[in-house]
Amino acid sequence: MLALVMNDAPCLATDHPNPKRARGEALVRVLRAGICDTDLQLARGYMGFRGVLGHELVGLVVEADDVGWIGKRVVSDINAGCGDCPDCRDGNSHHCPTRSVLGILNRDGCIAEWFVIPEGCLVEVPASLDDDKAVFAEPLAAALHVLDSIPPGADHAVVLGDGKLGLLTALALQSSGVRVTLIGHHARKLAIATAAGVEVSLSSEGLGRAAVVVEATGSRQGLCEALHLTKPQGTLVLKTTVADPLLVDLSPAVVDEIRIVGSRCGDLARALHALANGAVDPLPLVDARFPIEQAHQALARAAEKGILKVLVDFPQR
Amino acid sequence: MLALVMNDAPCLATDHPNPKRARGEALVRVLRAGICDTDLQLARGYMGFRGVLGHELVGLVVEADDVGWIGKRVVSDINAGCGDCPDCRDGNSHHCPTRSVLGILNRDGCIAEWFVIPEGCLVEVPASLDDDKAVFAEPLAAALHVLDSIPPGADHAVVLGDGKLGLLTALALQSSGVRVTLIGHHARKLAIATAAGVEVSLSSEGLGRAAVVVEATGSRQGLCEALHLTKPQGTLVLKTTVADPLLVDLSPAVVDEIRIVGSRCGDLARALHALANGAVDPLPLVDARFPIEQAHQALARAAEKGILKVLVDFPQR
Repeated sequence: MLALVMNDAPCLATDHPNPKRARGEALVRVLRAGICDTDLQLARGYMGFRGVLGHELVGLVVEADDVGWIGKRVVSDINAGCGDCPDCRDGNSHHCPTRSVLGILNRDGCIAEWFVIPEGCLVEVPASLDDDKAVFAEPLAAALHVLDSIPPGADHAVVLGDGKLGLLTALALQSSGVRVTLIGHHARKLAIATAAGVEVSLSSEGLGRAAVVVEATGSRQGLCEALHLTKPQGTLVLKTTVADPLLVDLSPAVVDEIRIVGSRCGDLARALHALANGAVDPLPLVDARFPIEQAHQALARAAEKGILKVLVDFPQR
Repeated sequence: MLALVMNDAPCLATDHPNPKRARGEALVRVLRAGICDTDLQLARGYMGFRGVLGHELVGLVVEADDVGWIGKRVVSDINAGCGDCPDCRDGNSHHCPTRSVLGILNRDGCIAEWFVIPEGCLVEVPASLDDDKAVFAEPLAAALHVLDSIPPGADHAVVLGDGKLGLLTALALQSSGVRVTLIGHHARKLAIATAAGVEVSLSSEGLGRAAVVVEATGSRQGLCEALHLTKPQGTLVLKTTVADPLLVDLSPAVVDEIRIVGSRCGDLARALHALANGAVDPLPLVDARFPIEQAHQALARAAEKGILKVLVDFPQR
């Protein structure tokens, strides 16, 4: 099959072996995939990943143990827990210590014609939601997951960074009733947020400190800035993983008793709901699309400065 | 008066001007003072502090606007808020943006015959509590304050570091019903914790990850170790401020969604209560004592490797 494979460098394979479904897994034919900054990091060597890239998708279930899944249009949680450890038994497979992660850790991803994933990871897509929106379920779930890390009733947040994740987080929080100030450097991107009612700024200067700050730049400078933007006893949500160590002086966090919370994957059903009811419209973030045959070019375009979401299309059958 | 003063280096002044009480402040004659690692950091240039060192004390009120204070034996909160900002009006003067901090920031400290502090900072010491124990109120309050940063109902914590603050934190948590595992390198210090029922270990190897970890080494290595010792979605409390930047790779905090919480000063009344009812006995931590005339030697002794608490005695009148 066609697949975007990371070995020493990423390249398009035309004869990659079709995935084999294990017991409890579904075989999914991919309809649409998205490229995330994590894919770009992995393509640069982050985590030493080898295999098929990609973890944002919408697809059709082709085979499954539970025949009820067959033919269903789905998105997929990317964390495939062992199903047997205390975390998994607590419904917390996102932190299963032996989990595989779709296209990130010990599991081939979804920038390929087919992939396999435990059936428990699948979530059906509402018929009303088209593929271009549904493919945002995974990153939007991660963006909405910030709500789980901030104090209940928080009414304002500053989001640092107007990349894909920062923008989506700003839209997600704003749609959930949290007033957002998004700080970024790109007028074009900030305009997307403005259209959704988000307050935007080209700089943090003069903004004052906020009780909730989300760091979505993934840079050391951004993290330092975020620390200084957070009010004493406030919450700083770390949203990005990067290939380079995030070195930072944490002394201000002690003096100001700041709560720094790492935040990763979220609940796909919540994201599908926000997409289906129009609370979040991700389409302005789509900057380019390529057929799977040009997946390598898609990756290159996604890595260009200033480019937001790049989608990968698959042939309709 | 006699005072331990930091200019370009710390030195004992014999003719330091007596402090002048402003409106709302009390003039306090010092009975006993303690030396903290923060004093050692300040003496090395941390925060560029200039003035009288010291913020751990028990003293007698000599003058005050509220005559009810006069003659009372007291300890003192070290944070002197402006009294007028939103933080102060919320009773949160620990985070007043223009606060002075006793012996740390814009306010002369208490390793001196007299010092002044707002009356609102004073807390009376129970008659049953002797000076040697009462002088631990400030650091024990900081240690007990860790309880305010961990999830309610937490039943186990790992404390990293068997210095003064690590030991006191271990004793404080254990006395509050949290089972503690203290990791340190000094058999003599660990024995103090063992006597209080704390589980101890010379290494974190083989311990497994914990839902609550307190970093009290103040070293970068300790912080990295603490991050890896914290369970996914667990709480890592940062307890130490240091002169050098605490540079650390925070990526694991994102992947494991760890909550990192800075923790500084606590509630003196809570600490006095724990000292008075014997829940925490700090006396095994006292390694040396010097008269105020030898305060410089006291500081030097406190800086020696492996030394725990050094007290400074003042003449009885």
